Amino acid sequence: MIKTDILIIGAGPTGLFTVFEAGLLKLKCHLIDALPQPGGQCSEIYPKKPIYDIPAFPEILAGDLVSNLLEQIKPFEPSFTLGERAETLEKLEDGTFIVTTNKETKHHAPVVVIAGGLGSFEPRKPLIPNIANFEDAGVAYMIKDPEIYRNKRVVIAGGGDSALDWAIFLTDVASEVSLVHRRKEFRGALDSVEKASELAKLGKVRLFTEAEVVGVEGNKVLEAVTIRHNDKAKGETVLDVDYFIPLFGLSPKLGPIGNWGLEIQRNAIKVNNAKDYQTNIPGVYAIGDVNTYEGKLKLILSGFHEAAVMCQFAYQRINPNKKYVMKYTTVGGVEGFDGSKKEAKKEVVQSIV
Amino acid sequence: MIKTDILIIGAGPTGLFTVFEAGLLKLKCHLIDALPQPGGQCSEIYPKKPIYDIPAFPEILAGDLVSNLLEQIKPFEPSFTLGERAETLEKLEDGTFIVTTNKETKHHAPVVVIAGGLGSFEPRKPLIPNIANFEDAGVAYMIKDPEIYRNKRVVIAGGGDSALDWAIFLTDVASEVSLVHRRKEFRGALDSVEKASELAKLGKVRLFTEAEVVGVEGNKVLEAVTIRHNDKAKGETVLDVDYFIPLFGLSPKLGPIGNWGLEIQRNAIKVNNAKDYQTNIPGVYAIGDVNTYEGKLKLILSGFHEAAVMCQFAYQRINPNKKYVMKYTTVGGVEGFDGSKKEAKKEVVQSIV
Repeated sequence: MIKTDILIIGAGPTGLFTVFEAGLLKLKCHLIDALPQPGGQCSEIYPKKPIYDIPAFPEILAGDLVSNLLEQIKPFEPSFTLGERAETLEKLEDGTFIVTTNKETKHHAPVVVIAGGLGSFEPRKPLIPNIANFEDAGVAYMIKDPEIYRNKRVVIAGGGDSALDWAIFLTDVASEVSLVHRRKEFRGALDSVEKASELAKLGKVRLFTEAEVVGVEGNKVLEAVTIRHNDKAKGETVLDVDYFIPLFGLSPKLGPIGNWGLEIQRNAIKVNNAKDYQTNIPGVYAIGDVNTYEGKLKLILSGFHEAAVMCQFAYQRINPNKKYVMKYTTVGGVEGFDGSKKEAKKEVVQSIV
Repeated sequence: MIKTDILIIGAGPTGLFTVFEAGLLKLKCHLIDALPQPGGQCSEIYPKKPIYDIPAFPEILAGDLVSNLLEQIKPFEPSFTLGERAETLEKLEDGTFIVTTNKETKHHAPVVVIAGGLGSFEPRKPLIPNIANFEDAGVAYMIKDPEIYRNKRVVIAGGGDSALDWAIFLTDVASEVSLVHRRKEFRGALDSVEKASELAKLGKVRLFTEAEVVGVEGNKVLEAVTIRHNDKAKGETVLDVDYFIPLFGLSPKLGPIGNWGLEIQRNAIKVNNAKDYQTNIPGVYAIGDVNTYEGKLKLILSGFHEAAVMCQFAYQRINPNKKYVMKYTTVGGVEGFDGSKKEAKKEVVQSIV
């Protein structure tokens, strides 16, 4: 059982900054995230995209924003459960919570903060009726370990960067790579499109454009896919394959959190923005893009503010009899749990003569 | 008459960032500040102090925070009325406002945002009954143009950095520099204390410690000050001088804004934090350290969030019939009023074969 003061669900920018604000109040944080690394969307979806509306950064790459936040919270030694999805929330009689992940990891804390962004990102799946029968038996929606595909026949579907980049990458690994896309045009970085074009000309990628995978078949494991061409004269092509990997992007889903008894509005969690960003379950807060209230802006900078406010009220919940007097970091510095101390140079006080 | 969309009172970090959020909505801003430069306290009081709690900056000097914000808002071409204090607010029949400064500069806008921080900073004055008679006639509370003191006899009072640094500086300008401080110890940067110590030993600064200026006199203009020593045996010293400059620091005052009919609580302006940070006067908003509500944190990052939320509602007030759909800067980029355009590299869309 992992124990902490504040259990944060979601390790995106808002979840990460919560560690800092909690740390100033001497509260320890643990973060759960379904993705294998911290940073949420910023790390997973657009690490190389510039963001222009983080205050005092005329421009910052999403990946750098995450690195900066990780550096800022380092003194407060956050711990992580990564690659696991928070599945259930149980409230104990003493008012504390147990959160269990899909891999049965259990976490115990007096305060739970949901900083889940748009939810956990799940792959968009093609509408092939029996496709579920072949999941983990030839059909995969993301590539975790490319070695699995060594010397295998692979069909990738999709027209974006992921489909292009993996098709290119797998030409060096798989025995046969086919790329199926329903349009003629691909949408990706210029060099990816050019590279894929070159490989197609060399015959290293077999290209099916204006076509769609409409059928999967096999005896227990995948053995073939059926590709239907938009041009009816061309009809259908049946391709013997070992793997079919549709890469149609990720779609955010609130997921199991939706079943925790929280008040949900338009796929987001209703909170009391007039006070503490608490949900309808006392002790459970929701901050950042996952919450909603009148005038809510899904901006990273709003998550930062909500984190700071929420931490003050979480402190009161955890320490009902203590009074916390806020100290400015400019005056009091930052004392890490790791023994580090950052502070402004002190003025000297001494007599001149 | 200066006309703008959003008139911002206070050019500290919150006021400056408002220009950015308003700019994204194509709204023009004008800022009024009593200080001679933008940045508020960060520029005036502690430009060289590190701040540790700005999200994604493990450490940033207050002065650099201001420079970054000025760079970020540059595309939106803010205009300024600096060195003037917003004095009166008048609501016109059409619901727009006229704000007039102490120098009679008039500003006209449909929305007024008070981002006044702790208020306008005013010099702390010594308790000498007739001192007001000599203001601008030998007595000054801040040094604007040191050349005024060339070949004059100057008495400075105070024990902090300002008093030390100006006493040091004026030894090269004035014919005589005296420094009066009620304690023996000075509180300032190490090198300032050492330098002043050295100048005192060389006789270039005449030092009166454990002493206080208790009287000023002269015929129309200042001619002499009376210094009372703590040690009663030493009694009083009367010093013939041309200038007396008490540098006792700045003290924040809500000032004339307090008389605008706004609901004030504990020297701050009450706002509706559940929605739009509007005050009790429709069309007048208050954001940053100047406002108050349950759970208010006087943090710069809270001012940033409040600015973003407020601008959305200000937009609706200014454009009651338009619907604004928020675009992420990561997706839509930033289009400046100066014709500049920042945006993420676009994906290409093209066919491979």
